[in-house]
Amino acid sequence: MDSLNNGWFSELQADLWPGQSFSLKVKEVIHKEKSRFQDIQIVETETYGRCLILDGIIQCTARDEFSYQEMISFLPLCAHPNPKKVLIVGGGDGGVAREVECIRWKSTTVSSSCPSNISRRWPVFANEKLKLTIGDGFDYMKKHKNEFDVIITDSSDPIGPAVSLFQESYYELMKHALKEDGIVCSQGGSFWLDLDYIKKTMSGCKEHFAKVAYAVTSVPSYPCGHIGFVMGSLNKNQDFATPKLGKSEIDAIDLRYYSSEVHSAAFALPRWVQKHFYE
Amino acid sequence: MDSLNNGWFSELQADLWPGQSFSLKVKEVIHKEKSRFQDIQIVETETYGRCLILDGIIQCTARDEFSYQEMISFLPLCAHPNPKKVLIVGGGDGGVAREVECIRWKSTTVSSSCPSNISRRWPVFANEKLKLTIGDGFDYMKKHKNEFDVIITDSSDPIGPAVSLFQESYYELMKHALKEDGIVCSQGGSFWLDLDYIKKTMSGCKEHFAKVAYAVTSVPSYPCGHIGFVMGSLNKNQDFATPKLGKSEIDAIDLRYYSSEVHSAAFALPRWVQKHFYE
Repeated sequence: MDSLNNGWFSELQADLWPGQSFSLKVKEVIHKEKSRFQDIQIVETETYGRCLILDGIIQCTARDEFSYQEMISFLPLCAHPNPKKVLIVGGGDGGVAREVECIRWKSTTVSSSCPSNISRRWPVFANEKLKLTIGDGFDYMKKHKNEFDVIITDSSDPIGPAVSLFQESYYELMKHALKEDGIVCSQGGSFWLDLDYIKKTMSGCKEHFAKVAYAVTSVPSYPCGHIGFVMGSLNKNQDFATPKLGKSEIDAIDLRYYSSEVHSAAFALPRWVQKHFYE
Repeated sequence: MDSLNNGWFSELQADLWPGQSFSLKVKEVIHKEKSRFQDIQIVETETYGRCLILDGIIQCTARDEFSYQEMISFLPLCAHPNPKKVLIVGGGDGGVAREVECIRWKSTTVSSSCPSNISRRWPVFANEKLKLTIGDGFDYMKKHKNEFDVIITDSSDPIGPAVSLFQESYYELMKHALKEDGIVCSQGGSFWLDLDYIKKTMSGCKEHFAKVAYAVTSVPSYPCGHIGFVMGSLNKNQDFATPKLGKSEIDAIDLRYYSSEVHSAAFALPRWVQKHFYE
């Protein structure tokens, strides 16, 4: 199988998910370029709508992106008692900014190291409460101390440029950019694919955060059909699984995937995963 | 893409999941035959272990089958106050019988219409509490009235021989084979693929059962990486999401996937699915 063969795009990654591959039927290749950082493809698929592919890995499709975007945004936002200032690292497709915007937090700052020619096309970036920075997330955080309530890291997988976002030093940096009781939430991979890598990321987080958890959501176009999030809180009494925002307030936001029940259920892990992470 | 091409098996079903395909790298084709009912393949895969494929659709792989088998078995068994006699329709791979056996219910009856030359190889079928019948599940149930506490339907997808197991008439038949307060649990498809078909199955169930619910579990080798279960109870006060068996009793069974928390979380559906099914 090739990555684009007879009208199908196949996601082949022998290092990250050996022996398995997800394929989407492609109607049209919309855009193809090699940037300084990544190989970029945008394709129109037959049944998943438009799809962004970076370095041969599906980043999001129109059909199922709301599951990932809502969950990586609302899990930390609703676990924090009063999130006023939010930093999004990565998130160049604009989906997380759209979700954070939709509950109208007083101020939102986005730092993105993603190619600006894609991300600027999203209308969410025109919101004046949002500050878009094209640059290095590490450098940005070094210059902003004790400033954010929530930091969301919407990164690609831990291969190539994104590796550093899964390491202990990154959690240390986020801690210093956070206010008291701040919460972080990062794309954290699949428990079916690499339990030990997730545990290592959680251990790195635990070095700097009082409470650490892993939650999961269903996304058909991601490897193994789901994706997890590593969360850390500076509040030692943090209860991640119980949203701080009331059920009726959450319902009023009118989301497609996220609800109070979905929030709590996301932390219920299969018994063998639960034991591996927490015992 | 062909179904077996350059050492990869690809699951192509233009009717059931158009425009998408999951592939597994195959080390060796162990068995291949065309029975009176189905096309049967058993392959050894590179990273998912041994895999059973019927009519080009993955039925189970050694790596992730425990999620499906434990959930389709323990969701109904633990939702029932005292399950003594269990009927498994389908389940020819023996996985469900293995799970039902592992909590040592007083009596278990299996009716299977699957090819006997595969299913008989599993040691669980030697258990004397288990009665194996090779035949038609419909005929079997017609002859057994008010007999079972739980009926588990471990079927293939609603295409070909399994279509009838998703219809209202099947729920009617199950109701008559059940004792008072009996519970049924059937393979019910993915909410990402066909919300309306699941809703139709649930409506068929609702014609004969006082309470109906849909739950879900993560299975990477199934389309969209998960699978759902349609459950019905003759008890009008049934609370599906709260297991009747205590947390410590469930923990003592020592399962890999299922736990009290996983049981409850399985019923928390994405907001748009919840609204579609229950509002």
